[in-house]
Amino acid sequence: MIIRFDRVAVDLPAPASPNPNGASLVQELLGGKFGEMSTLMNYTFQTMNFRGREQEQARPFYDLIANIAAEEHAHIELVTYTINLLLSGTTPRGTDPTTAPLAGANESRNSYHFIASGQTALPMDSMGRPWTGDNVFSSGNLKLDLLHNFFLECGARANKIRVYETTDDPTVRAMTGYLLVRGGVHVVAYARALEVLTGADLGKLFPIPDISNKQFPEAKALEDQGLHRILYRNNPADFPRVAEVWKGLHPEDGSVLHVEDGIPEGVPSPVLPDEPQLTAPGIGAIDETMLQEIATRLG
Amino acid sequence: MIIRFDRVAVDLPAPASPNPNGASLVQELLGGKFGEMSTLMNYTFQTMNFRGREQEQARPFYDLIANIAAEEHAHIELVTYTINLLLSGTTPRGTDPTTAPLAGANESRNSYHFIASGQTALPMDSMGRPWTGDNVFSSGNLKLDLLHNFFLECGARANKIRVYETTDDPTVRAMTGYLLVRGGVHVVAYARALEVLTGADLGKLFPIPDISNKQFPEAKALEDQGLHRILYRNNPADFPRVAEVWKGLHPEDGSVLHVEDGIPEGVPSPVLPDEPQLTAPGIGAIDETMLQEIATRLG
Amino acid sequence: MIIRFDRVAVDLPAPASPNPNGASLVQELLGGKFGEMSTLMNYTFQTMNFRGREQEQARPFYDLIANIAAEEHAHIELVTYTINLLLSGTTPRGTDPTTAPLAGANESRNSYHFIASGQTALPMDSMGRPWTGDNVFSSGNLKLDLLHNFFLECGARANKIRVYETTDDPTVRAMTGYLLVRGGVHVVAYARALEVLTGADLGKLFPIPDISNKQFPEAKALEDQGLHRILYRNNPADFPRVAEVWKGLHPEDGSVLHVEDGIPEGVPSPVLPDEPQLTAPGIGAIDETMLQEIATRLG
Amino acid sequence: MIIRFDRVAVDLPAPASPNPNGASLVQELLGGKFGEMSTLMNYTFQTMNFRGREQEQARPFYDLIANIAAEEHAHIELVTYTINLLLSGTTPRGTDPTTAPLAGANESRNSYHFIASGQTALPMDSMGRPWTGDNVFSSGNLKLDLLHNFFLECGARANKIRVYETTDDPTVRAMTGYLLVRGGVHVVAYARALEVLTGADLGKLFPIPDISNKQFPEAKALEDQGLHRILYRNNPADFPRVAEVWKGLHPEDGSVLHVEDGIPEGVPSPVLPDEPQLTAPGIGAIDETMLQEIATRLG
Amino acid sequence: MIIRFDRVAVDLPAPASPNPNGASLVQELLGGKFGEMSTLMNYTFQTMNFRGREQEQARPFYDLIANIAAEEHAHIELVTYTINLLLSGTTPRGTDPTTAPLAGANESRNSYHFIASGQTALPMDSMGRPWTGDNVFSSGNLKLDLLHNFFLECGARANKIRVYETTDDPTVRAMTGYLLVRGGVHVVAYARALEVLTGADLGKLFPIPDISNKQFPEAKALEDQGLHRILYRNNPADFPRVAEVWKGLHPEDGSVLHVEDGIPEGVPSPVLPDEPQLTAPGIGAIDETMLQEIATRLG
Amino acid sequence: MIIRFDRVAVDLPAPASPNPNGASLVQELLGGKFGEMSTLMNYTFQTMNFRGREQEQARPFYDLIANIAAEEHAHIELVTYTINLLLSGTTPRGTDPTTAPLAGANESRNSYHFIASGQTALPMDSMGRPWTGDNVFSSGNLKLDLLHNFFLECGARANKIRVYETTDDPTVRAMTGYLLVRGGVHVVAYARALEVLTGADLGKLFPIPDISNKQFPEAKALEDQGLHRILYRNNPADFPRVAEVWKGLHPEDGSVLHVEDGIPEGVPSPVLPDEPQLTAPGIGAIDETMLQEIATRLG
Repeated sequence: MIIRFDRVAVDLPAPASPNPNGASLVQELLGGKFGEMSTLMNYTFQTMNFRGREQEQARPFYDLIANIAAEEHAHIELVTYTINLLLSGTTPRGTDPTTAPLAGANESRNSYHFIASGQTALPMDSMGRPWTGDNVFSSGNLKLDLLHNFFLECGARANKIRVYETTDDPTVRAMTGYLLVRGGVHVVAYARALEVLTGADLGKLFPIPDISNKQFPEAKALEDQGLHRILYRNNPADFPRVAEVWKGLHPEDGSVLHVEDGIPEGVPSPVLPDEPQLTAPGIGAIDETMLQEIATRLG
Repeated sequence: MIIRFDRVAVDLPAPASPNPNGASLVQELLGGKFGEMSTLMNYTFQTMNFRGREQEQARPFYDLIANIAAEEHAHIELVTYTINLLLSGTTPRGTDPTTAPLAGANESRNSYHFIASGQTALPMDSMGRPWTGDNVFSSGNLKLDLLHNFFLECGARANKIRVYETTDDPTVRAMTGYLLVRGGVHVVAYARALEVLTGADLGKLFPIPDISNKQFPEAKALEDQGLHRILYRNNPADFPRVAEVWKGLHPEDGSVLHVEDGIPEGVPSPVLPDEPQLTAPGIGAIDETMLQEIATRLG
Repeated sequence: MIIRFDRVAVDLPAPASPNPNGASLVQELLGGKFGEMSTLMNYTFQTMNFRGREQEQARPFYDLIANIAAEEHAHIELVTYTINLLLSGTTPRGTDPTTAPLAGANESRNSYHFIASGQTALPMDSMGRPWTGDNVFSSGNLKLDLLHNFFLECGARANKIRVYETTDDPTVRAMTGYLLVRGGVHVVAYARALEVLTGADLGKLFPIPDISNKQFPEAKALEDQGLHRILYRNNPADFPRVAEVWKGLHPEDGSVLHVEDGIPEGVPSPVLPDEPQLTAPGIGAIDETMLQEIATRLG
Repeated sequence: MIIRFDRVAVDLPAPASPNPNGASLVQELLGGKFGEMSTLMNYTFQTMNFRGREQEQARPFYDLIANIAAEEHAHIELVTYTINLLLSGTTPRGTDPTTAPLAGANESRNSYHFIASGQTALPMDSMGRPWTGDNVFSSGNLKLDLLHNFFLECGARANKIRVYETTDDPTVRAMTGYLLVRGGVHVVAYARALEVLTGADLGKLFPIPDISNKQFPEAKALEDQGLHRILYRNNPADFPRVAEVWKGLHPEDGSVLHVEDGIPEGVPSPVLPDEPQLTAPGIGAIDETMLQEIATRLG
Repeated sequence: MIIRFDRVAVDLPAPASPNPNGASLVQELLGGKFGEMSTLMNYTFQTMNFRGREQEQARPFYDLIANIAAEEHAHIELVTYTINLLLSGTTPRGTDPTTAPLAGANESRNSYHFIASGQTALPMDSMGRPWTGDNVFSSGNLKLDLLHNFFLECGARANKIRVYETTDDPTVRAMTGYLLVRGGVHVVAYARALEVLTGADLGKLFPIPDISNKQFPEAKALEDQGLHRILYRNNPADFPRVAEVWKGLHPEDGSVLHVEDGIPEGVPSPVLPDEPQLTAPGIGAIDETMLQEIATRLG
Repeated sequence: MIIRFDRVAVDLPAPASPNPNGASLVQELLGGKFGEMSTLMNYTFQTMNFRGREQEQARPFYDLIANIAAEEHAHIELVTYTINLLLSGTTPRGTDPTTAPLAGANESRNSYHFIASGQTALPMDSMGRPWTGDNVFSSGNLKLDLLHNFFLECGARANKIRVYETTDDPTVRAMTGYLLVRGGVHVVAYARALEVLTGADLGKLFPIPDISNKQFPEAKALEDQGLHRILYRNNPADFPRVAEVWKGLHPEDGSVLHVEDGIPEGVPSPVLPDEPQLTAPGIGAIDETMLQEIATRLG
């Protein structure tokens, strides 16, 4: 069970300009094989499927995956809102269909944003292919699942870097910068879990790919504040023992890892204006009388 | 953002016996087109994509969908744990691969339960096909999205009824009984939302399909306690205005609808024993020395 | 069994100009989830699968779905010919491959139109993904199937509106204008079927989405002629009892619904010129002697 | 445009017994790569897409494909009704869900027949995978399209033979026997078309695979009546010139090919009883008062 | 088992310029339904699956398919390297992510080239859809499999012609010119196999589609050297009897067919420069000290 | 380019008995996400796509992946022949279709083995879903690609273990025993490559999952002969520098790793008898006269 909050983890600046093709690329971080749908669903299923979690040695790993799973919900929100902000105002607003307001779809990479959605995100990748449950790996073997998660986060990191490099739009960069830091925490967390479990020393593998978060100004600013050292203990009562894994020094800069209880304070979810040419949401499109009627019925 | 709890909404009795083919059928309620992955993801995306939500008339609908989305997380848990319980003990436990412990897979409908997972659930349907983002509908037009949701819940109801009818296993029946009631609340909620939005009168459509929840003893017992009258207001501070939609009388039995704040108390998540023949989780399979080493590292 | 006619339901004007990206978007109305392949196949399967159709109360619903299914064949034709007309002449005609006649494919959204087909339609959507049988819903429960069909037609309506808004091309507008009217008939028909079956009053739901057909000049012109009031009784002898559902007043403008026997008169299918650079059809590309040979063989 | 008839091309005897796994295999002939959905849709799209059809030399080929396309509609009906008859009565009829009436689904190959449909067919194959538009080939080059069709029909023939061999059920055998003969006509027709177009001599290729229709008693009986010599000219007015291709002697038995106008007389569509445990159609499940109400509304 | 060589069959000139959309189209020849992945995998599976191959009459056909399968590996290499060359240098090289080096992805048809790969090929088609095992046909019936292969090669030929026509880039033309000739050999080989097996005369079917290889200067130059007359006997010891099928005169130009032992001499595989903005391969991106460390470890 | 041999790497004993469901499970090792199609294609594409391979430090890694890629071809052969042997004789042989020889398909997990193939393998997994190019990972970043390969081989290892555990059939056990050893070499090879590249120490991670190859008698016997210490240098001239990675001691048993040139000697490919009820290959099904005719044509 969850309690959901109407806040997002970090403030997203307004886009430089509406940018439908940029939105089409950002979709990779939402619904691609290495997108946030994948991280969310992998860890959610691995926790529900975790056999033997009540064992003393197993519990810290269960708690770790569960806490990270919970954070991933915030990440699908950030990517989704980035897409939605990029798509807002992409086509001229209005209620007259004869002006061909959606003409821009002809030159856009992803037509679903105009036909299937109201210029908003869908769980698909940068080529418009839907996210699939095939992306979930849950073998039941803890070591193998942790290795998968470590690889998944490295692959996700590569995708974030590359999407960052497609644009200088401030919304995209703020979002990818934040996710590079938070995803970086998860990369380290799964490596550390493997180390605790086996005694192997994975520290020299970092960074994968071969470029540091410090090269990305938006990420560097957050790491300067220490955000890469924090693992959020989403629910300290129910998933307590993460500090038995998340401990010691960060393998890249040697800073001290620490656990923080709860979720980030965040900010209110972004405002998404009406797009009347898409009757989204359609309430503003109807006449005043009807609005009053609805108000009455809501009464 | 979410806070996650390590509890499930309702107590699941132990299965009558391990039942891999039963588990294969229950997968339809998890990863099928009308499964809980679909309800969760449809409503989650519709809320993140909801344009104009800050408008006075729109807000109650936004709050309604957001609250229901949050509840659906509990539903993927219930279905997943049902599958996991049915699969526990399905094959003989042990660490010797030469005894062919997984021979049962030869007669089982879904081989992924034995090869891809540790006898646990995956986001796929009753034929082993993965859940897909194509199942998410988010047009941006409120009326159309609500109509979709109403249809989706009716389709989900049909699937629950039919899966119920495949077995007399108590775990499956407890789970489907509970979900028939809670899904029934969502059917009514979306119908009511359409009524509030348009003034149409949908009450006589019920029940869809043409069989009452009261015909299912496990559901009837919960409705006798009034569970079908309750809409959970998951987060009263952030998604407050649901009572402007969830109000009046239940269209089937005329009981008074009411809103309850917070999530159900629930019970602790079920315990899932090790399956050593699948090295799930694999920690128990290693020698004592190594366990002590891990304990030390965790230290 | 069917008898097929080499006519299309309504005259399609020539496109303003060849328009491959426009054609790529129109594909959504053919092979998209809410395209005409979906309406045709849903109703065709629902009729073949209709249990208990010989019962007195069931028969009118069977006849209704069967008649609508038959009309949908005309709709896949209209969308297909629209695509084919938009693609005709898109690339320079000729038989010399060294002139790179298909260079335009480099800038086109859908390369299958140039590589897999001869600049013609295929059963795929606006992103080039194939239509799938997953789009067919046939639960066997009449009420649920009717609700599905009502939703499907509303979703199809949204897609038509949005494709209309992408262009001022006269072919696309004539086609979407016609289909908005005829699809509008089907929306009302399924609503009316639900009303007759249950007594619910769905009239106030219209229009979904919140924009009237009257806003589309090409649709309005046809509605002014009453086309939105007519249900075609495709085969009066075999599927007779549609008037028991299609009766009363139109929920949007109060006009009187009526049944018309047979299919529209229509016009001859559009002429599609050769595209020799694609060897389509290839007969014109061969020398005169060979043509005479074929003529002889045909003799 | 089409006119649809409520008759099927040939009488289907009752199954020996309900047979859900048999039905699951027959699905290959409906929604498999070489199933009737594929033949119907390939030829339908190839005719709508046929460039240069008005040319003297091209027209007979256009007419041929169009006539065959129209016949394929009858074939999806026959396969669908075979599946539906095999599934009728597969589970015990009744309205009490607590008796676990659908328990048989646990041992069945295809669970969609019980969960997604009302024990009826869906456009999927023998492994439950949906038919896809990827199965449609329409290159625009006449010779290549004809070669494809020839191969498609040979592949379809192989599948029919193999499905025949899975069972001694009379419904399946009557259906496959009939389709072997009619599909055999299409194999020969496309070979003949290639011969007329190019002068090649394909006669010695037959039969593909290497077993004669005469080996199948149900097919032999129909061929003894000459059914393999007939090409139905579905609409003589609109698609007239098929006799310029369908002429000469049958390559296997030397009988004289001839064209017959119109569609087969056929027989009424099979009756499909209610399956109340699936609320299919659900009308019989409601009380008498409600039935009278519906009758009144239908009034 | 295979031995692999680090050479490609023919020299590929450098592209006129980097060309990502051109690369996106060439993907059809790699991972499309009729791409080289399909020819390779069809023939590889058909040989491994070939029943009764040890029979005197069957063996030449087995040997033929096996030899062609081995050649197809060279063809996936040629198409892959063509794509890789077209993508090299497509984006500005450098290690600073803040310059938005991948901005070009916003205007590119296939974003996977920038996000999923290091500006290199993947097994997908011109719309970015992955190659699928559904493309493999292996019925076990020799005649039907040969007919399939004949059709597959004709379809592949159509695709090569059309991709050739999209560009005047010399790399693409050299590659397609070569493959038209070699694929043309395979078309004839499968036709000849059917002729030997059945006695049918397929010679007049050529060419399919209706345009000769001689129309393509790069192909004509190779045919002038006789390359279209040669079947490579990949492994004369293990797959010897191909000359019993590949014999007689070429059906198009009457030249004498002959068998050549071994593989083409070929040329070294093309050099692919680093793309540091994609950290591909990433070794050059790290500092000198680390390079020396790796060198030491390799030591 | 490749040279192909008609030998398989290791002798496969005859199955205990025909076993179609066993064959259906073994398909996971061929066409599953972690099957041999995936390993073959991942490494083949990674080598063709390898940027900067001519650099001194990069070359050993290129050579390593190329050599392993070449070996994987032998592995798809072994899995395919295992499936083919399990399916041989599964249904009664004969040429009379009226005996329902394929009745066994009704109880079989995978119907494609009977309908789409001649009781032989296809590139699909244990649920009949086709292998897909989505399984290929080729990011271009060497470290990330190596990490992927390490994970892929660990996942493949888990699948082999689990398929081994489904049966005591000697063919399956011989095949999986051999592949556990050879795949184990690849696991170590990629770990070693990461160690050489970064200096990380991964040795303590082994084995993944937590069960040693020594627990599998067929694997142990081969390891006792040292097969787990050998990396085959497939083509010493073209891919020479593998010994710079494959060196030192085996992380599990401390034996000395060494490189062996060439491919294993292997044994002739297994003989697959005719299945005349499937007309596979169909040559034996035709009369003596025709066989003599073919012999003459082969002449």
